Amino acid sequence: MSLIVQKYGGTSVADAERIRRVAARVATTRRAGNDVIVVVSAMGGTTDQLIDLARQVSPSPPGREMDMLLTAGERIAMALLAIAIHEEGVEAVSFTGSQAGILTDSSHGQAKIQEIRSFRVQESLKEGKVVIVAGFQGVDPESKDVTTLGRGGSDATAVALAAANHADVCEIYTDVDGVFTADPRIVADARKLDEVSFEEMLELAATGAKVLMLRSVEFGRNFNIPLHVRSSFHDGPGTWVKETTMEQAIISAISHDTSEAKVTVRGVPDRPGVAAALFEPLAAREVNVDMIVQNVSEDGTTDISFTVPTEHVPVAKEVTEKVIVEIEAAGVDVDEAVARVSVVGAGMKSHPGVAAKMFRVLASNGINIEMISTSSIRISCVVALDQIEEAVRVLHAAFEPPRMVGGL
Amino acid sequence: MSLIVQKYGGTSVADAERIRRVAARVATTRRAGNDVIVVVSAMGGTTDQLIDLARQVSPSPPGREMDMLLTAGERIAMALLAIAIHEEGVEAVSFTGSQAGILTDSSHGQAKIQEIRSFRVQESLKEGKVVIVAGFQGVDPESKDVTTLGRGGSDATAVALAAANHADVCEIYTDVDGVFTADPRIVADARKLDEVSFEEMLELAATGAKVLMLRSVEFGRNFNIPLHVRSSFHDGPGTWVKETTMEQAIISAISHDTSEAKVTVRGVPDRPGVAAALFEPLAAREVNVDMIVQNVSEDGTTDISFTVPTEHVPVAKEVTEKVIVEIEAAGVDVDEAVARVSVVGAGMKSHPGVAAKMFRVLASNGINIEMISTSSIRISCVVALDQIEEAVRVLHAAFEPPRMVGGL
Repeated sequence: MSLIVQKYGGTSVADAERIRRVAARVATTRRAGNDVIVVVSAMGGTTDQLIDLARQVSPSPPGREMDMLLTAGERIAMALLAIAIHEEGVEAVSFTGSQAGILTDSSHGQAKIQEIRSFRVQESLKEGKVVIVAGFQGVDPESKDVTTLGRGGSDATAVALAAANHADVCEIYTDVDGVFTADPRIVADARKLDEVSFEEMLELAATGAKVLMLRSVEFGRNFNIPLHVRSSFHDGPGTWVKETTMEQAIISAISHDTSEAKVTVRGVPDRPGVAAALFEPLAAREVNVDMIVQNVSEDGTTDISFTVPTEHVPVAKEVTEKVIVEIEAAGVDVDEAVARVSVVGAGMKSHPGVAAKMFRVLASNGINIEMISTSSIRISCVVALDQIEEAVRVLHAAFEPPRMVGGL
Repeated sequence: MSLIVQKYGGTSVADAERIRRVAARVATTRRAGNDVIVVVSAMGGTTDQLIDLARQVSPSPPGREMDMLLTAGERIAMALLAIAIHEEGVEAVSFTGSQAGILTDSSHGQAKIQEIRSFRVQESLKEGKVVIVAGFQGVDPESKDVTTLGRGGSDATAVALAAANHADVCEIYTDVDGVFTADPRIVADARKLDEVSFEEMLELAATGAKVLMLRSVEFGRNFNIPLHVRSSFHDGPGTWVKETTMEQAIISAISHDTSEAKVTVRGVPDRPGVAAALFEPLAAREVNVDMIVQNVSEDGTTDISFTVPTEHVPVAKEVTEKVIVEIEAAGVDVDEAVARVSVVGAGMKSHPGVAAKMFRVLASNGINIEMISTSSIRISCVVALDQIEEAVRVLHAAFEPPRMVGGL
């Protein structure tokens, strides 16, 4: 007998009809003899409606009360799902994050899971019940206040519950068929990957793949819980994300991200401490700095460029404009018309030609590279926003992911 | 400094605009130097929407999960109200029934409050915060499952919190101006009562006045918490419900109720035990029997008539049809086309002419009386449903409530 954690996103439970379909799937899994924990998001659209209501009463709602408000969304979905599973003739019980023992820190709106105390979940599983847990939410054990985990929180809930309860697999149900070699809306012949390593999935999630959030992949890797990303609309297999022992593709996928802007600080005096003077105050204001590139120029000054999410641009600009006065830099430019394309593959570690090929492919298609950053299994280039789709297409055609060892 | 409990119903918080209006009122009360506990219902319509969703997935949802579902409604309203009060510059914190320490028995959908542990509420009041508590809900301390209190539960929450925290007054905000001498939709010159005793309010609530639920009035009386029923749309005083020491009206109000049906068991053998044989199985099936009238006839049999809420008719019929076989009665009739009119007044205790006057007024207007029941401060008559409005009007005209001592 296996313990299976299943996570259903908002689109999978968007109305009564879909909830009944999810219930049927859960009931089938249970009847097959498995123990089942289901993690559910709010019904599609609910969270946005609640946020809209909050905005109608206040432009700056306090975090504690926003969390109280938003957690109503999963509560509705999980209760309805429990009712629908009962209707299938299978016993089910729904738990809030707090009831399921999901303890977090106190950062409302972006809390981190600290510990999971699963005794109520375990007890109900022993009684043969399907356990439904609200995604995205937990409780701060100090204040006893309800918290939310922020974007992708339901995935994190699912993987963390899978880890805490030693599940055999964590199934992430979504509205796409799995993880693709590129965004199928851009690349017509993008293929679904049967398997991808945790390492690669981390890079893909960090560089724009939206199917899984970074944090849930980290949890999966840290606790070695295989993730199965699959469609809630049919029974076919999706993509397995796991510690892989099989031969690894040189290139698994091309990812891209259009949600970042490039900030360039010009004419920075080339002396120790200037980078710290810039990035410490940005971190203090919780600006998510991603890529950082520094070029030393000949006149004793340098340009420092970095990318930030577009929604962080106003704060980043404000902070940077103060800093350049202190460090006596020449000026700041912000360019929101940029995007990042990345080539990800665990096999590239032992194949040093990947970067050169990527630069050549982009150049020969007239696409200028504005910034470059690399990890051992990823190469990212920032290009002009209006060239990003072209960049993804030409790179996918050139690398033909998933490309196994055998020649670049 | 006073401690004021304010309860706002669903229509008072039906949209963002109304929530802001309630927030302004709460903030004004707080700024005047009072401690404030606010009890809030779900936004008007929310509970019905949730019930409808549940019906779409199952015709018979389990009680635990229905309570989980429905409690999302107050959660949304209370968080939005807390946000709106913050926006007024006043600190506020919202608590679920569970967080507010409202412990109940385990009867999902109709739980009774057993105990209130107010330490979190008290702590927040001491910090100067307005405390918002979800109405209608609590927690079963044994199972740790969330429960709901059933109809009028938010009023019960408010009065119970007022009692547990030794509040000076419990204000019940509603969409009417207070308690009236009769339903203003039927009697054009019905007057708002400035004051009514707990005793009278209990009788009025039990006989059709919808402005306050029976249970909350019982709480108020048992713990001697003055209730102030008032409009959430303007600042004028409403009706005080309290232990009265002032001169009492002979007749305070005419109430009526069209939600009951009359069940008559004909030809019941007149021997000890038949009433028990009938009403015990009805109680076992949780049929709310209200008025009971028995007339001894001359042939050694009797007719027993009783009223039940119309929604209990199917069960009442089923039970009664079994019982009449056992007790060898002649048959059962159900009449749903009936209604009850009641004359209520604490002063009638010492004025024995009220019943006679009521019967005379009804008779002289051609209204036949089908059943009669009385308490020391109330006389109720069951009449034909199509004559009920006429009955209320002629009795209001005849008694002119609130009629002080001075002559019938």
